[in-house]
Amino acid sequence: MRLSTLLICLLTFSIGGFAQDAALEEDERALRTIYDEALVNGESYENLRVLCKQVGARLSGSPEAEKAVEWGKLTMEQLGLDRVFLQEIEVPVWVRGNNEHAYVANASPDGPRELKICALGGSIATPAAGLEAKVIEVQSFEDLDVLGSKAIEGNIVFFNRPMDPRNINTFRSYGGCVDQRAAGAVEAAQYGAVGVLVRSMNLRDDDFPHTGSMHYSDEVDKIPSAAISTNDANYLSAQLKEQPNTRVHLQLSCKTLPNQKSYNVIGELHGSEDPDRIIVVGGHLDSWDVGEGAHDDGAGCVQSIEVLRLFKAAGIKPKNTIRAVLFMNEENGNYGGRTYAAKSKEEGLIHVAALESDRGGFSPRGFSVDANDVVFNNLHQWESLFGPYDAATIEKGYGGVDIGPLKEFGVPLIGLVPDSQRYFDHHHSDNDVFEEVNKRELELGGAAMAGLIYLIDKYGLDFAVDPSK
Amino acid sequence: MRLSTLLICLLTFSIGGFAQDAALEEDERALRTIYDEALVNGESYENLRVLCKQVGARLSGSPEAEKAVEWGKLTMEQLGLDRVFLQEIEVPVWVRGNNEHAYVANASPDGPRELKICALGGSIATPAAGLEAKVIEVQSFEDLDVLGSKAIEGNIVFFNRPMDPRNINTFRSYGGCVDQRAAGAVEAAQYGAVGVLVRSMNLRDDDFPHTGSMHYSDEVDKIPSAAISTNDANYLSAQLKEQPNTRVHLQLSCKTLPNQKSYNVIGELHGSEDPDRIIVVGGHLDSWDVGEGAHDDGAGCVQSIEVLRLFKAAGIKPKNTIRAVLFMNEENGNYGGRTYAAKSKEEGLIHVAALESDRGGFSPRGFSVDANDVVFNNLHQWESLFGPYDAATIEKGYGGVDIGPLKEFGVPLIGLVPDSQRYFDHHHSDNDVFEEVNKRELELGGAAMAGLIYLIDKYGLDFAVDPSK
Repeated sequence: MRLSTLLICLLTFSIGGFAQDAALEEDERALRTIYDEALVNGESYENLRVLCKQVGARLSGSPEAEKAVEWGKLTMEQLGLDRVFLQEIEVPVWVRGNNEHAYVANASPDGPRELKICALGGSIATPAAGLEAKVIEVQSFEDLDVLGSKAIEGNIVFFNRPMDPRNINTFRSYGGCVDQRAAGAVEAAQYGAVGVLVRSMNLRDDDFPHTGSMHYSDEVDKIPSAAISTNDANYLSAQLKEQPNTRVHLQLSCKTLPNQKSYNVIGELHGSEDPDRIIVVGGHLDSWDVGEGAHDDGAGCVQSIEVLRLFKAAGIKPKNTIRAVLFMNEENGNYGGRTYAAKSKEEGLIHVAALESDRGGFSPRGFSVDANDVVFNNLHQWESLFGPYDAATIEKGYGGVDIGPLKEFGVPLIGLVPDSQRYFDHHHSDNDVFEEVNKRELELGGAAMAGLIYLIDKYGLDFAVDPSK
Repeated sequence: MRLSTLLICLLTFSIGGFAQDAALEEDERALRTIYDEALVNGESYENLRVLCKQVGARLSGSPEAEKAVEWGKLTMEQLGLDRVFLQEIEVPVWVRGNNEHAYVANASPDGPRELKICALGGSIATPAAGLEAKVIEVQSFEDLDVLGSKAIEGNIVFFNRPMDPRNINTFRSYGGCVDQRAAGAVEAAQYGAVGVLVRSMNLRDDDFPHTGSMHYSDEVDKIPSAAISTNDANYLSAQLKEQPNTRVHLQLSCKTLPNQKSYNVIGELHGSEDPDRIIVVGGHLDSWDVGEGAHDDGAGCVQSIEVLRLFKAAGIKPKNTIRAVLFMNEENGNYGGRTYAAKSKEEGLIHVAALESDRGGFSPRGFSVDANDVVFNNLHQWESLFGPYDAATIEKGYGGVDIGPLKEFGVPLIGLVPDSQRYFDHHHSDNDVFEEVNKRELELGGAAMAGLIYLIDKYGLDFAVDPSK
């Protein structure tokens, strides 16, 4: 090798190194700017307060859900985005009604003992006067098979398998229990049960019943289905051990109404280079009809809006179009997510990536990625950039319900992963209120999301890019 | 090399590899057992409830602190440890008294406006009728120097520098502000101030005043000193901008009494191989006289006790003696920590390591290590063992106040590092109550501590050991 060639090689190498160093420094600076802005001037917490306190619980199809649509549109319009619009969708409508309660009829000589319950979303009502039956406690569908019709027919089945406290990721424990809530009515009705009580999906012992979706099958009778608080599940289980003939009176007044029109709410910052390429950041605007939908998923909505605000405040001009999508109807149908994906296909929209926050407004630990290995590796190499913010875990995993239907088109899906220890204290219950959200934890989540979107926008995801080296 | 030699080499290498693999598997299993036990049968949460609700706030020298000593002794005795004993110490005694309040005297035509305040620990009282003076707001001691005696003499100095929200580690923000609380009275008195109000060390805007220690100097007059809630600090600052002649009436009834006798509470599991070598795990039993001392530091006490319980329940027989120490008087003097170290020196006790939990009962993220590089590197290589538990950050940093005096004897000091976002919402205020502690977060901290103690006990810290390879 001639000396001049060697020099050129060294120089090229050095310039390459300098360029990479400079890019890394630029990225570090950008993340620092984003985080500082989020923590000093953040608006997500105040936005969440307004959503929780002025709108509150907002089940799809309810007047409150429509109010939430207005809130989302107005909140994004006030940011001076390039475009804010509503995307029409259809939503199922289920209403709880006002007459919901349960008690142990033969608890003691002193009379009935109230149970803290709430109808599961989608359940039918009991007869107007309620129903009363003996209670059969089971831990699983296999238990039903063993007991058979003889034991179950005419009775209320009480699914009491608790969430496993040993999992560090509490969503894993949820996954190990939620079959009881989702399919318990179908399984129990096969053996002639007249109603279902399901232990709340909650790792704590407390008095909040936790609702959530359940489904029926056309093959078997529909029976009413309700969640019972963990404290009362423990009580009922103990009571059944003492008195196997324990009878529960259950009254639910819920019903399903015809589908209605509703909306996804979408705000955009247009891309300076590839405005037709879209990066989605989103959460879901609907909640269950209890609590205030603060962690689930007011947090994800205000964080998604905050991502756009942070871009503007930090003076970051995205190359691609960044879209915040407040999806309607995650909780009982995912009509919002499905319609969004279907319309994107119709319109031939190109999505670079979709990032969802729907695991509560807790301290972020990183991201979970549902994408191919090239994309995952490109995301994974950015871990160290999130090290200073304690959110440096980028692992393979689930994206989110609302963005899920985009997977069919090959869109990389990413979920924000916050600390999960407290999530199920709140989830789908009256305990999911604004006061249970910490301002800094919420803000850190929004900042982490904005930081990742900044990197995806700058480098893309399909190419072998390593800004950290 | 002859074939037989080669075979022996390969065999040795393989056996070495197998031994290391087996050791790693054993460690993984031990940690899993510890965590499972903590999350399924954990007793720390119930212990904390009893401490918070049956004893409550427990400032050194108070009857409640003595009740806490009894509680600690009894709680450890019930575990069937090898030894439980009290270590006598002397503690300062400061009492708040019953007559503590403040108001803006000339707030509006409607009359005075109450301010949420509380005396700082160690402060003298105001005159019995209170004192009333103009308020001078400053951000720093440098501001005092600029203003000088002319502006300050006869007035109340209001230190209002907020905690910096940009730090991810909130203890760093605390460190950047706490000079106002600790030395504000001395600095202001030098310029003739008659009293001091200090913005609470709190990152939230709320109504809780946060107390904490302050000191005087023999060189300058002692003046009364109180914390003001962040909401009222914001109000007072705004008020001063509108009306620079704003006057505050301040009344404090606190006083310092003669020192008293108190105790560190110590429980032991004796080592099977080196009973004279001690590994300390501890927290502090005293709290301020507000709230219930739940996060600060009831959490650290019940976690330390839990470490011993977990060892017993998991059937781990330590080689060294494991000591849980509930230190008295961390908050205002550290007599407990200093006496413990002094007596250890007297008795010639050998300490392998000391681990403290005093940063709240939040989700653990790892440990901070104050030790030499050999020790640090040995600890650091265990990071991956804590990966499955989301607590895999072992970094250089601070140990803890109570164990601090052991540093002089070369003892490696380690602090449990939980997520810090919510800590200063509670610290030293009426908001530090049992209800604000999450059971799982508390339990995970105790499990992480037990896991680390298990590894230190098994491998020691001074040797180049790498169980993960």
